[in-house]
Amino acid sequence: MLADINSSELGEFCVALHPARTAEFMEGLTADETWQVLAFTDQQTRVQIFSYFSAEKQEEILSTQDRETISVLVAEMAPDDRADILQDLEPQLLEDLLNRIPAEERRDYLRLSQYPDGTAGAVMTSEFAKLGADLTIQQAIHEIGRQSEEYETIYYLYVLDDEDHLLGLVSARQLLEGMRNPSTKLSDVMETDLVTCAPMEDQEDVVDKVARMDLLAIPVVEDERKMLGIITHDDIIDVVQEEATEDAHQMGAVNPLGETYLRTSVLTLSWKRGIWLMILFFFALLTAFALEAYDNNLTRWVWLVPFIPLVISSGGNSGSQSATLIITALSRGHITLNDWLQVILRELWMGLLLGTGLAIMGYCVAVFFPGVESLHAALVVPVTLLLVVIAGTLTGSILPLVFERLGLDPAMMSSPFVAGIIDIVGIVIYMNVAIWFLGMPPVN
Amino acid sequence: MLADINSSELGEFCVALHPARTAEFMEGLTADETWQVLAFTDQQTRVQIFSYFSAEKQEEILSTQDRETISVLVAEMAPDDRADILQDLEPQLLEDLLNRIPAEERRDYLRLSQYPDGTAGAVMTSEFAKLGADLTIQQAIHEIGRQSEEYETIYYLYVLDDEDHLLGLVSARQLLEGMRNPSTKLSDVMETDLVTCAPMEDQEDVVDKVARMDLLAIPVVEDERKMLGIITHDDIIDVVQEEATEDAHQMGAVNPLGETYLRTSVLTLSWKRGIWLMILFFFALLTAFALEAYDNNLTRWVWLVPFIPLVISSGGNSGSQSATLIITALSRGHITLNDWLQVILRELWMGLLLGTGLAIMGYCVAVFFPGVESLHAALVVPVTLLLVVIAGTLTGSILPLVFERLGLDPAMMSSPFVAGIIDIVGIVIYMNVAIWFLGMPPVN
Repeated sequence: MLADINSSELGEFCVALHPARTAEFMEGLTADETWQVLAFTDQQTRVQIFSYFSAEKQEEILSTQDRETISVLVAEMAPDDRADILQDLEPQLLEDLLNRIPAEERRDYLRLSQYPDGTAGAVMTSEFAKLGADLTIQQAIHEIGRQSEEYETIYYLYVLDDEDHLLGLVSARQLLEGMRNPSTKLSDVMETDLVTCAPMEDQEDVVDKVARMDLLAIPVVEDERKMLGIITHDDIIDVVQEEATEDAHQMGAVNPLGETYLRTSVLTLSWKRGIWLMILFFFALLTAFALEAYDNNLTRWVWLVPFIPLVISSGGNSGSQSATLIITALSRGHITLNDWLQVILRELWMGLLLGTGLAIMGYCVAVFFPGVESLHAALVVPVTLLLVVIAGTLTGSILPLVFERLGLDPAMMSSPFVAGIIDIVGIVIYMNVAIWFLGMPPVN
Repeated sequence: MLADINSSELGEFCVALHPARTAEFMEGLTADETWQVLAFTDQQTRVQIFSYFSAEKQEEILSTQDRETISVLVAEMAPDDRADILQDLEPQLLEDLLNRIPAEERRDYLRLSQYPDGTAGAVMTSEFAKLGADLTIQQAIHEIGRQSEEYETIYYLYVLDDEDHLLGLVSARQLLEGMRNPSTKLSDVMETDLVTCAPMEDQEDVVDKVARMDLLAIPVVEDERKMLGIITHDDIIDVVQEEATEDAHQMGAVNPLGETYLRTSVLTLSWKRGIWLMILFFFALLTAFALEAYDNNLTRWVWLVPFIPLVISSGGNSGSQSATLIITALSRGHITLNDWLQVILRELWMGLLLGTGLAIMGYCVAVFFPGVESLHAALVVPVTLLLVVIAGTLTGSILPLVFERLGLDPAMMSSPFVAGIIDIVGIVIYMNVAIWFLGMPPVN
């Protein structure tokens, strides 16, 4: 394909579309072909298109193409994107590339890469528009027009003192509106009540602030408001998606991957799943021993056995529904710990309603089930179902609240985990209801 | 508290902070008190603070305070926020308020409210900055400075023809950079390769576009690019969070609520859960009948019974882990249908690894379990566990892929649903492995 197209056409192709679209079109090419096409564009477009490639493709290009031209590209990348991609490289390649890029970019990378994954520092960029408080609106506009290519956003302009302490914020909107009085000083129009975050702050908390305040970007500051960088709206969207995926994994009893599914090796993945499967296995073992303890019941009334999965799955399912609802409501801020009584009362009501529904269906089946002696004996099934479903909704709602109260992540109360706990409770309820309705079996 | 503070202090309080923070501080006040405090601020600040109240508080204020002043506030709100809050009001109150606001705002509401929840039209706002293609950069800046208060964002300026067809986009960044050549026409600098969306497009697809392209806002256009409105970055974050919650609910076998947990009535919630509980109940019934069919096995080898929950929960748990991984990877775009073979092979490997792990633990327990006749008989447990876990990982990965292929939402393959299916498969495997190792039991 490349052979057929002349260079000016390729160059045109690269600039005609939004860089994200160009990147999409090129996703099918090999690393060599991609690099050849990119050679026809100017440096700035090349960096932009490259930033939109998938992490796999970026890594492949960085590790296979000419180091010298690669290092120029790396030096030009946005600091946060650069830190993300460099961190995934082989140590040797990383060192070589770092040695080839200018000292300023190298220091910048080392500073950004010191913050652990999941913190504000790890997603911030160090390129933001800085202005002095003494500038007038006219001067500020001039300054921005001159430097804007360097910054990720110029819609929020940060006013700093000589030692990079954050004094205030002027939006591009204020600048445009302020054109009527171009000699006004920035210090007279800047906002000073700013929402900021610390570099070690959990990225989830940062997202909450930005989402609640509808911000375009949030400054990351150290002690005494010394400004380190900003996190922009597009990175916030990425973080929201990443956190949602992690929560979903945790709720499905998989430890967060930190990578995409296909990029995680089968061994790592097995470990992240296996640890939970083992914990759940021990719960299931307890259930096995609980059943063993009621051996006599089951030998005497064999028809109780087929209903075991029905009983435990009804409890497990209603419990995991409750856990899902409470975990998502907690993480979205729709409920707080102060609502605990209301939550538990609501779940009790739901347990009663849902339990009654299942009990009616269960009784209809039990009455006609082979081996069930009488209408009275069949009552064991509906009464158990009602109690188990109530136990499920209560456990499923109380456990996440307790975890939240202890300062742990409520999402760890995954559906399978809640179901595992209810299994044991369910068996104990079932066997005791059976004894209550059918009498103690003879000891053999 | 209100009595102690004089009016100028209250007015100051309202403007000193970001409106979102002021709104937070006032969340504890009653509707009457809130309205009294807001009376001390100017109209614009009042509208801003009001927009940040929770939906509950907004509704309470709208339904209890003086209709005439309320309608002034409603008329001034951002069109998309206004549509959201008005849709939740009592029909009578809504009609009364609509009659009191200016005709233009009324028409605007009726247009926005026609789009169903979950579409681009339902989240867009109709207030965006429009410019003619013939304007120069100088004129555009002047125009924006004059009108900017009306628009939600002035960072993207849309160039339209006389009949509102979208011709291009000029960013505020380009305007500021273009100050050097203030007489350039907008038509010479505007971007024309625009990413747009249709009003009936699924909001999830809109989010994907915005996230992939790192956009600040996306225009909503009808046929022939007639522009209806825009969706801004802050609404996109809200949509991402909302969709993540819906997916989590669906994966936990709860139909999406469309409201927060506490605002959904217990009856509605019971219905959204009950429908799934019933479906899962029927799966569990099938399991019961499957067990009944193997009645003879269980009477002959009673020690098989306590392992029933262990077998089905191991399959269910590994299956719901796989389903969680595949559903999230599909929704994030980390895998596509083309990866099906790779996904299935990986899951097969993981099933082998995880199944072997559980089998070893299971055998150790079975050997010492009361009633198990021999080391050979105890083999039933590990062999079953291995096969059931493999069945679990395969079912959990294949079902979401099939649903995606059929154009259905893969998130409907919830953990409990997958677990329900594996339960039946697990019982059948267990009983057949038992017959294989222990021989056919005598028919009684």
